[in-house]
Amino acid sequence: MAEKAGAIRLTDQQRIDWLRLIRAENVGPRTFRALINEFGGAARALTRVSELARRGGRGSLRIPTHEEAEAEIEAAGRIGVRLVAVGEPEYPPLLRETDGAPPLLAVRGQLDVLTRPAVALVGSRNASAAGSRFASVLARDLGAAGFVVVSGLARGIDAAGHRASLDTGTVAVLAGGSDRIYPAEHAGLADEIVGRGAAVSEMPMGWEPRARDFPRRNRIIAGMSFGVVVVEAAERSGSLITARLANELGREVFAVPGSPIDPRSAGTNRLLRDGATLVTSAADIIEVLEPIMGRPEPSSPMREPLAGGGDTEPPAADDLLRGRIVELLSPAPVAIDELARAAHAPASAVQIVLLELELAGRLERHGGGMVSLL
Amino acid sequence: MAEKAGAIRLTDQQRIDWLRLIRAENVGPRTFRALINEFGGAARALTRVSELARRGGRGSLRIPTHEEAEAEIEAAGRIGVRLVAVGEPEYPPLLRETDGAPPLLAVRGQLDVLTRPAVALVGSRNASAAGSRFASVLARDLGAAGFVVVSGLARGIDAAGHRASLDTGTVAVLAGGSDRIYPAEHAGLADEIVGRGAAVSEMPMGWEPRARDFPRRNRIIAGMSFGVVVVEAAERSGSLITARLANELGREVFAVPGSPIDPRSAGTNRLLRDGATLVTSAADIIEVLEPIMGRPEPSSPMREPLAGGGDTEPPAADDLLRGRIVELLSPAPVAIDELARAAHAPASAVQIVLLELELAGRLERHGGGMVSLL
Repeated sequence: MAEKAGAIRLTDQQRIDWLRLIRAENVGPRTFRALINEFGGAARALTRVSELARRGGRGSLRIPTHEEAEAEIEAAGRIGVRLVAVGEPEYPPLLRETDGAPPLLAVRGQLDVLTRPAVALVGSRNASAAGSRFASVLARDLGAAGFVVVSGLARGIDAAGHRASLDTGTVAVLAGGSDRIYPAEHAGLADEIVGRGAAVSEMPMGWEPRARDFPRRNRIIAGMSFGVVVVEAAERSGSLITARLANELGREVFAVPGSPIDPRSAGTNRLLRDGATLVTSAADIIEVLEPIMGRPEPSSPMREPLAGGGDTEPPAADDLLRGRIVELLSPAPVAIDELARAAHAPASAVQIVLLELELAGRLERHGGGMVSLL
Repeated sequence: MAEKAGAIRLTDQQRIDWLRLIRAENVGPRTFRALINEFGGAARALTRVSELARRGGRGSLRIPTHEEAEAEIEAAGRIGVRLVAVGEPEYPPLLRETDGAPPLLAVRGQLDVLTRPAVALVGSRNASAAGSRFASVLARDLGAAGFVVVSGLARGIDAAGHRASLDTGTVAVLAGGSDRIYPAEHAGLADEIVGRGAAVSEMPMGWEPRARDFPRRNRIIAGMSFGVVVVEAAERSGSLITARLANELGREVFAVPGSPIDPRSAGTNRLLRDGATLVTSAADIIEVLEPIMGRPEPSSPMREPLAGGGDTEPPAADDLLRGRIVELLSPAPVAIDELARAAHAPASAVQIVLLELELAGRLERHGGGMVSLL
């Protein structure tokens, strides 16, 4: 993808600031975005987060030092990993447009595969021989049609999809750090993938993946791709989470049918009943995606004055407003707009209170401008 | 089903006349209906068909004698077969409403199963073991839910469906005469079916089924049923014809998904892609059909003054009009309405010409009031 209007390029110093901010305690992609939008840049946000957390009710907040961030970038560099920032031209263009896109993506391998049209191919870890074979056929045919195949490097369907698209381009999205390949037995496959494709992660170097990291990983898989193809999936499997996330992100969902008496098809058959496109060959996928690929991309929802930053000093919220907002919040997600209306407060003041609560670990941000109390 | 307003009961004489008329050369269910509507009864129509055929360009028309019809009824009776007329209370109520419903249905077995809510269960003759087992589960659960299971007595899925619903009620629709069970190896199964259920046919006693009789048979299967469930079906299989006919008749179409690498699922997966309801259990079928079963039945399109008959003598068509209509006809089906408009002739005169051509074997009637030249 050619460098385009609006594409940014971080300086080394900015990249370090971004890394410090996203690695700070209680800062996820959505908080990061809110902070950047509020303070006009990572450097300024870093000077404020401790104070905001304190006002939100938290003693101290763990923020990596400049040296620690530098060390992570160096450690990454030693195994060939680069940190690509959202908005930079190498960043996966569809992922960039998603709510909660990782500010920095650790990429090992070939950057160019990240900007080519991609399809996710996911499914059971304990796939049948027939399912794995069918995943291989789909991956090969999708690759031949110019699509990069994105998957999760898991056993079964994922591995079959990666292997069949090594030559045409494939991306493995990791749930742990770039140096923590899971499952360990796929370290060799990961090495093969990065030779022609890439392995990406939003997690720090050295991070061992935990159960709750996999849905986050799945969100990146869906976010990078025009569509998600589920080949075999039992009920309540991770692949169905990926399909649900894909649906929420407005991505196309495809499923391969299977016999009702095979539990590995229960999930895919459910997806089909819920409206997924039925797939018996790659042509079924290509037919749906090709017209979509022609659509103009939506503009990024991240309004970030990246270099330089904003000049206006955001207002400090008073304790009265903070108390009112905390009272209005509950564990049920509520829209920030409504919150501001109910609190009779300007949106800017409400945003500051939300950031305070968030950094204090008391608030969760959801998609669609919704927040809830933790 | 209770006897309802509008239900008829043929006299013995009328039944013989009906049988003579439907067994007459070049008279199918649609011609039968047109003749009855035109002349106000089978007896009057019988006095006219030879003359009509002659005017249509045919020397003589084979019509069974009174004695021959009586002999068929007696032969049928000897093996427990009764001829049920469309409009009689024992006639399958959904079938009665279809275009091209057989005027007389030969029924061996229990008449009451014909008026209970029915679902057709069809599929491959060379079904997989898993497919047959799944058909059995569906048939058993549909039977438990009060549905009669209708099928075609074929090997594979059909037989599995019949066997699993022997106790709850099943109907086998035959492509040949009631005394010509196909395949012969299912003669024992047919005997079991008629013990609690029924075997039905529109064909004469002694009729050996030919290839082209099976689509006609499939139309009865679909016509009798609220929905058609296809369990396994290859591309270009008879089950897909049944599904297409079901769709044309406004019946629900259900299909069981299967692996894309199993050719026995190619047809069902295609049906799913074309909008069939995906089935992984009987509940999927029942959920769709139960609300439909509450709908009031449409009134019969057959306006037949059965006893007595019409008093008006239909006009005889002149040779000029006949020539004009033949010129307007072609092998491409055309609506009778349009034909009358184009010929500048009253619809009643056009109907007579069409009957003449039909009885002369020169015209074919299609659904939706369309006709074409043979």
